[in-house]
Amino acid sequence: MEFSKRILAMGYSPIRKLAPYGAEAARKGVKIYHLNIGQPDIETPKEFMEGINNYKDDVLKYAQSQGIDEAINSFIKYYKEWDIDFESNEILITNGGSEAISLALTAICDVDDEVIIPEPFYTNYAGFAQGCGVKVVPFITKAEEGFHLPAKDVIISKITPKTRAIMVSNPGNPTGVVYTENEIRMLADICKENNLFLIADEVYREFVYDGLKYTSALYMEDIKDRVILIDSISKRYSACGARIGLVASKNKELISQIMKMCQVRLCVPTIEQLAAANLINTPKEYFINVKKEYESRRNILFEKLSKMPGVICKKPTGAFYIVAKLPIKSGEDFAKWLLTDYNYNNKTVMVAPAEGFYATEGLGMDEIRLSYCLNTEALADAMDILERALAEYVKIEK
Amino acid sequence: MEFSKRILAMGYSPIRKLAPYGAEAARKGVKIYHLNIGQPDIETPKEFMEGINNYKDDVLKYAQSQGIDEAINSFIKYYKEWDIDFESNEILITNGGSEAISLALTAICDVDDEVIIPEPFYTNYAGFAQGCGVKVVPFITKAEEGFHLPAKDVIISKITPKTRAIMVSNPGNPTGVVYTENEIRMLADICKENNLFLIADEVYREFVYDGLKYTSALYMEDIKDRVILIDSISKRYSACGARIGLVASKNKELISQIMKMCQVRLCVPTIEQLAAANLINTPKEYFINVKKEYESRRNILFEKLSKMPGVICKKPTGAFYIVAKLPIKSGEDFAKWLLTDYNYNNKTVMVAPAEGFYATEGLGMDEIRLSYCLNTEALADAMDILERALAEYVKIEK
Repeated sequence: MEFSKRILAMGYSPIRKLAPYGAEAARKGVKIYHLNIGQPDIETPKEFMEGINNYKDDVLKYAQSQGIDEAINSFIKYYKEWDIDFESNEILITNGGSEAISLALTAICDVDDEVIIPEPFYTNYAGFAQGCGVKVVPFITKAEEGFHLPAKDVIISKITPKTRAIMVSNPGNPTGVVYTENEIRMLADICKENNLFLIADEVYREFVYDGLKYTSALYMEDIKDRVILIDSISKRYSACGARIGLVASKNKELISQIMKMCQVRLCVPTIEQLAAANLINTPKEYFINVKKEYESRRNILFEKLSKMPGVICKKPTGAFYIVAKLPIKSGEDFAKWLLTDYNYNNKTVMVAPAEGFYATEGLGMDEIRLSYCLNTEALADAMDILERALAEYVKIEK
Repeated sequence: MEFSKRILAMGYSPIRKLAPYGAEAARKGVKIYHLNIGQPDIETPKEFMEGINNYKDDVLKYAQSQGIDEAINSFIKYYKEWDIDFESNEILITNGGSEAISLALTAICDVDDEVIIPEPFYTNYAGFAQGCGVKVVPFITKAEEGFHLPAKDVIISKITPKTRAIMVSNPGNPTGVVYTENEIRMLADICKENNLFLIADEVYREFVYDGLKYTSALYMEDIKDRVILIDSISKRYSACGARIGLVASKNKELISQIMKMCQVRLCVPTIEQLAAANLINTPKEYFINVKKEYESRRNILFEKLSKMPGVICKKPTGAFYIVAKLPIKSGEDFAKWLLTDYNYNNKTVMVAPAEGFYATEGLGMDEIRLSYCLNTEALADAMDILERALAEYVKIEK
C-alpha cells in the first residue's frame, strides 16, 4: 500500500521540528521562554464564552454551509468600522483562516497553476498550496529593507501564463511589515494589468503600531472584484482555538463558486459561530489595551535586538513578529543549540529558524523569527538571555 | 478573472437544490414534512454542553494538530466497547467526518487516481473526490436486493492500475443497508488480493436494527493496516453542528502522513473537542432509547412504503434512510411537484431525489431517498400524504 506522491512530498511543520528538543530541555528542568510561536497570551474577551452560553437549543444541528446569520452579520458590522462594505452573500464563514486559504486557492487555481508570494511568508501557505497542487512562486523581500516590497518590475518578472494570483499577508507574518498605501496600490496595479486575483490575508489588521495608517486591499476601489479577503478571529480576539475565519469578496460569482465546496464539507461548528458573533460586543478598550501591550513588547524586543552586535533588522510596525538576520551561519543549528546546549541561570529561549518561511532554498539560513507573545518582563529577560547566548554561539561557530 | 476548471466542474448540493421550492411552499403557508435531510431531531446528550462548561481557560488556545488528549482518549474508550483497539497515535481528530474523508483521499490518491464506491452513495463523496482530483468509479447496488453488494467479480472488474481504495458507508447512507460479515470479508479479500485500502465510513455504527450483528471493517484482522476508519459524533450523538469527527487507522505510518496535513490546518476547535470528549459519559440508555425510536420509525416508514402500489424497496436495517424505487419516470420532477403543485389539507412532504446519489448517469431517476428524522406521529402523517400524492402523480405523469 503506497501513499500519494503529494502527501509524501509534504513536510512536517518546520516550527514544530524543534519541539522534541524543547521537551527534553524542559525535562531537565530548564525554563524555556517561547519566542517561537504565534499563540497570543492575551485573554480572550469574555464575550466569547457569553456567546457560547447564548446557545439554548436541545439539538445541536448543522449550521448553514455559508455560516450562521449572526456570525455573518457581526462580521459585516465589524468591517463597516474599517470602511469596508460587505453584503451577506459576499462572506463565507470558514474553519479558521486556514480553510479560507485552501478554498480560495482551489477556486481560482487548477493543478500546476501558480501563485506569487513575497518571501519570507507564513509557512502554511506552502502547505495549503501543496495540498491543492498549486505552485508557490516567491519573490524576495529583505531584512535590510524591513521586508517591504521590491520594485514593481521584480514582481512582474515572476508572472507566467500560469499565474493566477498574488497572495500577501498584511500586516506580515513572519516579518511584521505593514505595507504602505503605495505598496498596496502597486499590487493592485499589477493584478489589474495582468488579470490576477489578489489574495489578501489581513488577520493581523488590528495590530498596526506607531499610529500608522492601515491600507486594506479592499480600499483599492478599482480591483474590488479581484480581492479575496482571508480573515480570522484567531489573533484579533486571541481566540485561535475557536477556528472561526472567513473568505470574503466583492466578486459574488467567486463566492458562489466557493460555496459549492462549503456545501460539500457541510458547515462550520454552530456554537463556535455563535460565540464568534458575540465578539462584536467586545468593548473598544480591549483593542486599545491589547495594541498598547503589543507595542511596548515590540519596543523591548526591537531595542534589545538592535543593540546586539551584527544583528540586522528594521523596526517592524505590525503583527507580533520580527525576523532578524544574525551574524551566524545557521539559524536552525542555533535554535537547536539554544535548547540542547545552552542555558543561563537554568533558563533558555526557543526561537523559530526563518529558513522554513522561505520557498527559495538557501535563503533565510542566518535568520530567525521571534514572536512577542510573552509579557514585557518575561520578554526582557528572554532577550537578555538571547543576547548572551548569541555572543557565546558566535564564538563557538568560529 | 477566471475560476478554476475544478471548481466550475463541481455542482451545487443536489439535495439543497429543492430548497427554494420548499421556501416558496412554506411562504404560502403549506406545512412541509422534511423527509429529505439527515438532520436528526433527537436531543443531543446534555453531556455535550456539560463538556463545554468544563472549559475554564482564559485564553482560547490552539489545540494540538492531532486533537486534544481528552478527545482521543474518549474515542479509544468508545472503540473498546466495540472490541476495536486503537492507540493514541492511530487517531486524528477532524472537522467532522467530512474532513476525515478529504484527508484520507488526499493521503492515498494522487490526481486522477481512482476509488471504487458502491452506488447509490453519500453525495458528498463525489464532492470530496472532485475537490482533490480523484475519480469515483461506481458499481451498482439495487433496490430489489436491498442494496447489498454484488458478486465479487463485479467489484473486481472495476479495478484498474489507478485504483487505490474501495470506499463504503456501513450502515449505508442513503440506502440503510447493513453489510453482512460475509460482505465485509469479501471486501477485505478484494483489498488484500489487489493491494487496496478500504475506507470504511462507519458513522452510523450505532444504528443497526432487528438485533443484527454489526461487522466493522476493523474486525478483519488480516487487513487492519489497510482499513482507514472515518467516524463522527454527528449522527451517533445527534451533534451534527459540533463538527467533530476522526480518521483512524492501525497503519501508523499512514496516520503520520495525514498528520502533515493536520499541521497545515493547525487544529480542530478546542472547546468542541472538550465537549465531544465528555460524550463518553452519556448513559447507555441514551443509545438504547434512540435505537428503539429509530427502529419504530423505520417500521412505520417501511410498512407504509411497501403497501404503495408499484413501490420497490427492501426493509433497511440500519442508519435512518431508505431508498425506494417508485412507479414514476423522474424522482426529481416528483420531488419538485410535491412542493410546487401538491398539498393535502395544506400539508406536503419534501423528499430527496435519488439521482444525486448515483455517479452513473441515468441511474436512480425513478428513486427517492427518505430519511426518518421525524417523530412517529409526524412520520405516519407524512407517509399518508406521500401515498396520496404518489397515486395522484402517477396518473398525471401518464
